[in-house]
Amino acid sequence: MSASKSTGRVVALCGGVGGAKLAFGLERLLGNDLTLIVNTGDDFEHLGLKVSPDIDTVLYTLSGLANRELGWGRQDESWNFMKALSTLGGETWFQLGDRDLAIHVERTRRLRTGETLSAITSSFAAHFGIAAQVLPMSDDRISTAVVTSEGVLPFQRYFVERRCAPRIDSIHFERSVRARASSEVLSALGDPQLTAIIVCPSNPFLSIDPILSVPGIRAAIKKSSAPVVVVSPIIGGKAVKGPTDKIMTELGVPRTSKAIAEHYLDLIDGLIIDHSDEQEREIAGCAVRTASSLMNTDEDRVRLAGEALDFARHLVSTPQRQFGG
Amino acid sequence: MSASKSTGRVVALCGGVGGAKLAFGLERLLGNDLTLIVNTGDDFEHLGLKVSPDIDTVLYTLSGLANRELGWGRQDESWNFMKALSTLGGETWFQLGDRDLAIHVERTRRLRTGETLSAITSSFAAHFGIAAQVLPMSDDRISTAVVTSEGVLPFQRYFVERRCAPRIDSIHFERSVRARASSEVLSALGDPQLTAIIVCPSNPFLSIDPILSVPGIRAAIKKSSAPVVVVSPIIGGKAVKGPTDKIMTELGVPRTSKAIAEHYLDLIDGLIIDHSDEQEREIAGCAVRTASSLMNTDEDRVRLAGEALDFARHLVSTPQRQFGG
Repeated sequence: MSASKSTGRVVALCGGVGGAKLAFGLERLLGNDLTLIVNTGDDFEHLGLKVSPDIDTVLYTLSGLANRELGWGRQDESWNFMKALSTLGGETWFQLGDRDLAIHVERTRRLRTGETLSAITSSFAAHFGIAAQVLPMSDDRISTAVVTSEGVLPFQRYFVERRCAPRIDSIHFERSVRARASSEVLSALGDPQLTAIIVCPSNPFLSIDPILSVPGIRAAIKKSSAPVVVVSPIIGGKAVKGPTDKIMTELGVPRTSKAIAEHYLDLIDGLIIDHSDEQEREIAGCAVRTASSLMNTDEDRVRLAGEALDFARHLVSTPQRQFGG
Repeated sequence: MSASKSTGRVVALCGGVGGAKLAFGLERLLGNDLTLIVNTGDDFEHLGLKVSPDIDTVLYTLSGLANRELGWGRQDESWNFMKALSTLGGETWFQLGDRDLAIHVERTRRLRTGETLSAITSSFAAHFGIAAQVLPMSDDRISTAVVTSEGVLPFQRYFVERRCAPRIDSIHFERSVRARASSEVLSALGDPQLTAIIVCPSNPFLSIDPILSVPGIRAAIKKSSAPVVVVSPIIGGKAVKGPTDKIMTELGVPRTSKAIAEHYLDLIDGLIIDHSDEQEREIAGCAVRTASSLMNTDEDRVRLAGEALDFARHLVSTPQRQFGG
């Protein structure tokens, strides 16, 4: 792990659970040399509170507060607020734990005073003792909407309330064309000291594409001389998280490493695939490294993060991008 | 208790803890023949949430959910939200329990959709199984402000954060001159079937005066043919609740039944004082009945409520108002 000190600055793009696990490993290795650009397309207002699911998953995961059993929210959570809300006839399809509620109430309060989501997130990260810079992809509101067999659904309605049941036709990032990347995001990606851009094993369509939809971010990644390493969310021909699998099928995307590589066509320099997908090594269409990419323990997370960083160093020494760049 | 069925409709004015206890007794006797007009001068926005302390105390007390140990909030409460908020650097001087939080979040959400505080309160009361009509004194925002030795303080800052420490010079009800009584309040007070108006043993200056400051309410009470019975908050020459005692001293008001009667000068028909203040029976300046006015148990509450209703019936049969009317 001491090797990390020579790694220089690294940017990682990530969404929720799977991405946050790799982010945890990267932060252990890089500390404040890491900048995370986090999807906010899932953000929505619920019960009058501004909820930022992926930012919270990243903050909770990096600070060791995440609920590993549920895969969302905080550990050792209590649910007395929801029970009382139910008695009052309030909406209960989206569960907010008593401890978790604090971040939504405080974020909402601070946003209403005019603070940016970036400033608030940075303050929360500091209070949680997180060394990495955690940045929302934009301070402007972008909302992921899913065009389904049952009409257009806001992401959380599709994902949580409907449990991904409706068939997906396409995905939109509302207002993204008018959104701006924050100066912090552009400055992190434009840093000449940047040595790697890691795309975490998040859902490419729902977690990473919203980030890439923010005007300026894709161009900044392409402009950077740092190699882009994608950690595939596919293991053994399946997505680790159930919904990604179903969504890829419905969007007509094969659950292969090649499809992941092609998805990031003009950005990718290297792809990390799981050992179980070894047979795809040659057909992915870009530099490929195999690794154990299932992250059950903290050690798994740190090890995979180390692989990604080492791979990026290797790509620097052999700068031959397979696609675009 | 069957006597209550012949009582007809009754309106009671009340503030927080002490008033809510009598309201509990009245509701047990009257059910949906009772209308409560509740002080909202203490209402404030905290953490971006609309908090209505007296309405909540009434709702929790009438539904049996009140925390009797604390004297505020809900029983069997947990505090995980506040602990998590503290970790995030949020404000913690005003404690909101996890269960209690539901009413503030849901009220805030519904107010933001344009519903009135009256409609929301009525809905909450129904969900809590409360038969009485619970009405905020106004749907317009009126804020009790305390002019103290340390400047003007919003009520909750004075009451909770400063624990009533600053010396009170005077009390203002901000925006009350422009406020309107709701149609429900005016219709309850204007009901020709009204048989009694009870002023609960709440702090006259901080809990009842804000209600009387709403244009139209004082006039409607005076116009009503129903007798006005005030239950004195003084027991044995002292206010039951510590702050009332201190506030009366600072405002130069003697802690006597006579002073209470004079405070409600143009409204009062009858005053209920505690047996321990028997010696004040003659000097109060209006019809007086003695009773046991300390309310420790549910039975105490119902018994005192019964005394107030019976006294009102007596006043009806001997209609000689001592002051004004």
